[in-house]
This record gives sequence, structure tokens and C-alpha cells, in this order.
Amino acid sequence: MNPNLTIDRPTFVTHLECSLTGERYEADRLHGLSRAGRPLLVRYDLAGVQASLSREALTARPTDLWRWRELLPVRRTDDIVSLGEIETPLVPLRRCVDGPDVWVKDEGRLPTGSFKARGLVMAVAMAKELGVTRIAMPTNGNAGAALAAYATRVGIETIVFCPEDTPEVNVREIAMQGARVWRVNGLIDDCGAIVGKGAAEGRWFDFSTLKEPYRIEGKKTMGLELAAQFGWQLPDAIFYPTGGGTGLIGMWKAFDELEALGWIGSKRPRMYAVQASGCAPIVRAFEAGEEHAERWEDAHTVAAGIRVPRAVGDFLILRAVRASGGKAVGVGDPAILKAVDDAARKDGLLLCPEGGATLAAYRDALRTGEVDEEERVVLFNCATGLKYPMPEAPRTLDRHGVIDFDAL
Amino acid sequence: MNPNLTIDRPTFVTHLECSLTGERYEADRLHGLSRAGRPLLVRYDLAGVQASLSREALTARPTDLWRWRELLPVRRTDDIVSLGEIETPLVPLRRCVDGPDVWVKDEGRLPTGSFKARGLVMAVAMAKELGVTRIAMPTNGNAGAALAAYATRVGIETIVFCPEDTPEVNVREIAMQGARVWRVNGLIDDCGAIVGKGAAEGRWFDFSTLKEPYRIEGKKTMGLELAAQFGWQLPDAIFYPTGGGTGLIGMWKAFDELEALGWIGSKRPRMYAVQASGCAPIVRAFEAGEEHAERWEDAHTVAAGIRVPRAVGDFLILRAVRASGGKAVGVGDPAILKAVDDAARKDGLLLCPEGGATLAAYRDALRTGEVDEEERVVLFNCATGLKYPMPEAPRTLDRHGVIDFDAL
Ligand SMILES: Cc1ncc(COP(=O)(O)O)c(C=O)c1O
Ligand SMILES: Cc1ncc(COP(=O)(O)O)c(C=O)c1O
Repeated sequence: MNPNLTIDRPTFVTHLECSLTGERYEADRLHGLSRAGRPLLVRYDLAGVQASLSREALTARPTDLWRWRELLPVRRTDDIVSLGEIETPLVPLRRCVDGPDVWVKDEGRLPTGSFKARGLVMAVAMAKELGVTRIAMPTNGNAGAALAAYATRVGIETIVFCPEDTPEVNVREIAMQGARVWRVNGLIDDCGAIVGKGAAEGRWFDFSTLKEPYRIEGKKTMGLELAAQFGWQLPDAIFYPTGGGTGLIGMWKAFDELEALGWIGSKRPRMYAVQASGCAPIVRAFEAGEEHAERWEDAHTVAAGIRVPRAVGDFLILRAVRASGGKAVGVGDPAILKAVDDAARKDGLLLCPEGGATLAAYRDALRTGEVDEEERVVLFNCATGLKYPMPEAPRTLDRHGVIDFDAL
Repeated sequence: MNPNLTIDRPTFVTHLECSLTGERYEADRLHGLSRAGRPLLVRYDLAGVQASLSREALTARPTDLWRWRELLPVRRTDDIVSLGEIETPLVPLRRCVDGPDVWVKDEGRLPTGSFKARGLVMAVAMAKELGVTRIAMPTNGNAGAALAAYATRVGIETIVFCPEDTPEVNVREIAMQGARVWRVNGLIDDCGAIVGKGAAEGRWFDFSTLKEPYRIEGKKTMGLELAAQFGWQLPDAIFYPTGGGTGLIGMWKAFDELEALGWIGSKRPRMYAVQASGCAPIVRAFEAGEEHAERWEDAHTVAAGIRVPRAVGDFLILRAVRASGGKAVGVGDPAILKAVDDAARKDGLLLCPEGGATLAAYRDALRTGEVDEEERVVLFNCATGLKYPMPEAPRTLDRHGVIDFDAL
């Protein structure tokens, strides 16, 4: 039905490259981190893309993630796996903010209810292409759900580890979708240590954030979509809830590739990496002028998706934020919860706590003059609010009794 | 950004019509049921639509619900309310069914996680257009959530009543999104009685299924989308989880309108109205050859969305099903749960129980020869599976202990 999924298209990957040293790695082979222990980035023959694809041809295709095939790593159409990766809508906020040009990119509409689907659909397709049969992953919940769904669909075995306080709905969803899932008494990097140990023993392939090269390519489509949705004029500022940072790094890469194609100019949005004040390693490093971020001890926040004490791509996040003229900023849990409540109660939009964090950070930025009221701003709501605990609403009515209609 | 939401377009509503008697009602005025106590249907100047809109022009627009403006009742662009009503994807089932051409229309991707958004976005926009300030509604959960979100967005007050065993997540979501919500010790028609009483006293406008004319126009877009997505060739059979039946009636209406425009031919899908065997008034009436369905006593099923003991549009459902050469069929809760489990475990797709019911019914139909393995079939998954209880998945790992990797 959807030609994006069925028509063979040329692909333009030339090689992979260490994000720290620039060392080259061969494409079409299984890779984890670079020899320097850093993420690998996928490189394309962008002149080739430019010669084979116009902005107009791109725009005429159905609007899903796979319309961007020439800028994605999957070579064979047969290896595409899909659960319907739609372009996510931009929903304007009207009542809960003062700025007239504030948009929520509602990533909760993707398969398994979060933007993790973007990264995992790509990583699983590549794992299939490269013959992987067993995958393990540490997750705060959403990534594990996306991995389970896609891997199940192509028959790859998955083992998922999550912190023991991961919300029940996430754990159950992962199990329902065919993965084996374990709760671990620790945080996501403790889960990552178990995955790393098993991978070193050759038990499975390690699918941790940025430890395989293709999730970032999938997440990159957030930047590609933004450019297309705003008519190839990027917004003034982007607020992104930052854990491992794949999305922010991915968007930054997308913008460079689009500029190389001549589809956008050199202007970039200011990138705001939003963290919770209870777990803000990137904010601390940003403020201290460091290139790398130390592990954050005793991490805690209601926004579990950004409870990431240590990020292997720390320097990539910090570079993008600085190069963009943005900032890394922390917000407290009360401000996060207030933002979630306001967006639902005033604009009918149920954000996840991580999405709430971006709204809270935007409000702070407006207050301090960091962002102007008239600027065009995008807030990322990375998952559906339905996966998160909501306050109780207990009011019962006895239909056999006398109903006081005035009091309803 | 999205021209569907900003460009003024002609609208073609001529009048409303009683679905039983054909009696005419004036457009652009507030209506509930007809004088005969039956649903009103919106009628359009389809020749006018044909003259002003081609299939090609339609196809070139962004693919959301509002691309169908000429076939929708909202006249003023200013009255459009939107939370991003995307065209929902068709996801093929591969491993959990034998037929090679079975598609799930994944309605859980709409705002508030269900297809109720289609009907309510339209009904709320019209309520706004017609000056309504206070709305009440009985709901099994999903409709109330959609109403709350859209009404909140345009500042209309809402009071929602749901059966006391409505899942917690639904009740909380409704409250979060700014509605006042009450649990009632009864079923949805008991809630409806309270709403009816308040409406008769002039306390609010009654938004019960089919008691206002515009929800069906929104739901109709499911049929419009199917036609466009399948290249203007409708599928052989549609399995639809039927409670109030708005969606089925709406799709049937859509097909007639598309044929009048010359965009599709006279061939129709066989429509299968799927109910739970614990609440199957339409199935009973279908099998007895009746035109109307009696109330189902002691209704019970895990699929709360189709636990509707009495439907005001019963005769419209039965007529469409019969005219299409389809059937009304019941499936048991164990088959529903098994279907949900299979779709998740084999195809990575988390259905809601109502969606599971359509898969179970399809399997039955395949077994009895009612549907052929080679036929193109669409199953409606009307809500995200994330809103429903999932089985526990309790496995814990002590990272400080000795981990037996072979046992993971
Ligand atoms: C809802 C949500 N928001 C944000 C994030 C952080 O994403 P990233 O790893 O790209 O920084 C996550 C990661 O789990 C998440 O689930
Ligand atoms: C998930 C789900 N499926 C199906 C239905 C039934 O829809 P209809 O009223 O169009 O028959 C509902 C209604 O609540 C629902 O929530």
C-alpha cells in the first residue's frame, strides 16, 4: 500500500566514523562502539543523495519515517520492519503558555507510544540486515517496549533489563510484546553493566543507547520532519528532554545533512537540553564548561526517561548545545508536574513527565529572557502521557439515590 | 503550518435528515435526535463537492482528518479544533494470522489514544460553532477522554459519567484533561439516563453516541481514509468492534458519498459487526432477522468499549451489515484475550480488547469459510492497548548477586 515500504530505493551510506577521533569503519558490518569507546556515526554520499532526490519528490511521498530512505542506512527494502511510523503532528499550545508560536511535537503517536520507535525500528532493521539473532538492552521503559515490538516482528530474540522502579505498564508492555524482561535493583547504567557483561561473553548484541550506530539515524528523522513540517525553515529554539541524548544529537546531525543537500540554510535552532534537577549531569558539565559529564550520584526524578546518570554521548550533546547557542537546563519535579497538569487542563494535551520538563524549561527561559515570547519554539513530548501515573479522580454517584444536579 | 487547518474552504452541508423517516432538518442549528427519536444524518451537496474537489487535489493535501473538509460539517476555519488528527496507519499482520492480506487500522494513534477523537473533534467543533457552553456525556472511557481534551481546548465545560468499573486510567485521563467526571453504579445506558435527565432540564447539551449529529461525520473519516489508503479500492471485508456502532454507520455513509462523487464504484466491503458474546444485542437481532435490537441484560465483557446493552442506531447498524452481505458476530472473552496476546507476542502489535475481538472474529470467519484466506481484510483496533490491564511480568534480578546468564 505504502510505496515508501515497498519500492526499492538507492541507499547512500559510505562508511561509519568514530564521533571522537574521526576514524573510519566499514559500512554493512556489525559494529558497537569505536575502538576509542565512543559512538559511531553513519556517513552518506550526500552529493549522491542530492543528485537522486529533490525536496519536491520527497514531499510528494507519504509522510512517514520511511520517506527519508535515502538518508537512512537500511539498504534492502526486504529488511524494512514497520509498525506504521507516521510523521508525528505538531500541536500548538494556546492556553498554557504566553508565546503564540509554541508547538509540541507529539511523539507519543508512534508505535509503542514513544519516540524510541524511531531509533529502534532502524536499529532492528539493521540488526536483521546484519544477521543478529539475539539482542539485550538496558532501558527506562520506552526503549525496551519499542525494541520488543520490532524484534518480535522480525523474529529476533530480546532480553531487556530495567530499573526496579520502572512503571508497571512499561514492564508489562515489554513482556506482552515477546521480550524477556528483568527488573534490576539499580539504575539504567547498572542495567547497562549487565548487558555489557553478557555482550562481552558473546551472549547477545548490545543495544544500549549509542552503543550501536543506527538508533541515532532513526532519531535523526525528528529533525528531518521538523524541517519539512515548517516549510524548510527551522524553529528558533528546540527544547529536548535529554537522557542519553540520542534525539538531540540525531537532530543536530540531520540539520547538517539537510544543509549539505541545500534544503536548509546555515541557521540553526538554539538547542536546549532539558534535564531534571535530580539528575542533571549534562547541565553540570555545561555550566562548568567541561567537554564530558561525570556520573550523577543518587539520581532521582519523576521523569524516568531522563533519569540517566551517565551518557556515553555526553560530549556530542554538549557540543551541539554549545554550537547552537542553546543551553543545558535543569527543572525540578514540582515544575514538571505542574507543567503536565497545565497542558492537560488548559490545552487538552496529556504530556509525559519528560514532555512536561520541556514545557517547564520553556517557561523558565521565557521568564529569564533567554527565549523571546514571539519566537517559534518546539517542545518535544517524547511519549504518550497515558503510560505514566496520573492523580486519582474518585467521585461516585448513586444512580438509585437522589441526584443533586446542581452539585455535579 | 498545516494548510488543512488554516485555509478557508467551501462547505457543502445542505440539511440534516432523520435516519428513520427521512424528515428534513435545517443545518447550522443545534439538534439532538429527530422528532421520531432517531439519529439525524448530515446531508451534503455532493454535486457541489464533485465540482470543487478532485481526487488528485485531495490526495495532494496533508494526510489528516481535515483534508476531507468538503465532506465535513464545520463551516468556519476558525471553529476547527485540533490536537493533530493524523491519518492512522494500516499495519499488516504477518505471524498471528494465516491470511497474507490482513491489515490492522491502528486507531490508537489518534489524540487521547482512540478513534473517539474522530467523532468528538467534529462534534466539539460544531458545538463551538453553534454556541454550546456545557456538555454532558455517558462513556465507557475513551469517548469521555476525547470529549474532555477537545472541549477543554475550546473552553467548553464538560461533565462525564462512566460505569463504576471503568478502568482507572480512563477516569484519571478524563479528569486530567479538565472534565468533571463521575463513576456511576451501572452501565453506560444508566449513565446515559442521567445525562438525558439533565439535558431535559436544560442543564447541558447531550453528547451521547448518535444523539447529536456530528460524531458520525467524524467517524466517517475512517471509511474515507480506507478508500484513499487502498488506492480507491475498498477491502473485501471490514471487522468492526460494535458498541453504539457510530463507526460502522459512519463508514457505510462514507462509502455512499464517495460513490456519489465517482471516486469509488458500487462494490462494498462485507461489514462484520463484532460484539462480545457477553453483550451481543446486535448479533441476537441479526440472527433473529429483526430490524431493532432489544436491551441485553447482565452485560459483561473485558472489552468495555463494546459493552453497550442498547444502541439508539441499532437499525442503522443492522441495515448496513445486511446490505453489505456481512454479519453480526459474537466472540467470547477468552478468544479476545488470546487474540490480544497473539498479536503482541507474534506481531509486536498491542491491541485493545475491542481490537482483539475483531481478530478473534476474523479467525472464526476464516475457520468457517465465511472469509477466504486470500481476501483483503481490515480489522479495526480502535484504541491503544496501553490503556488496558496487562498481565503481570514480575522477574527481578539482584545485580549484587551472582547472575546466572544462562538462565536469563
Ligand atoms: C519519554 C522520554 N523522554 C526522553 C527520553 C530521553 O531520550 P534520549 O535518550 O534521546 O535523551 C526518554 C528515554 O528513555 C524517554 O523515554
Ligand atoms: C476501543 C473501542 N472500540 C470500540 C468501541 C465501539 O465503538 P462504536 O460506538 O462506534 O460502536 C468503543 C466505544 O467506546 C471503544 O472505546
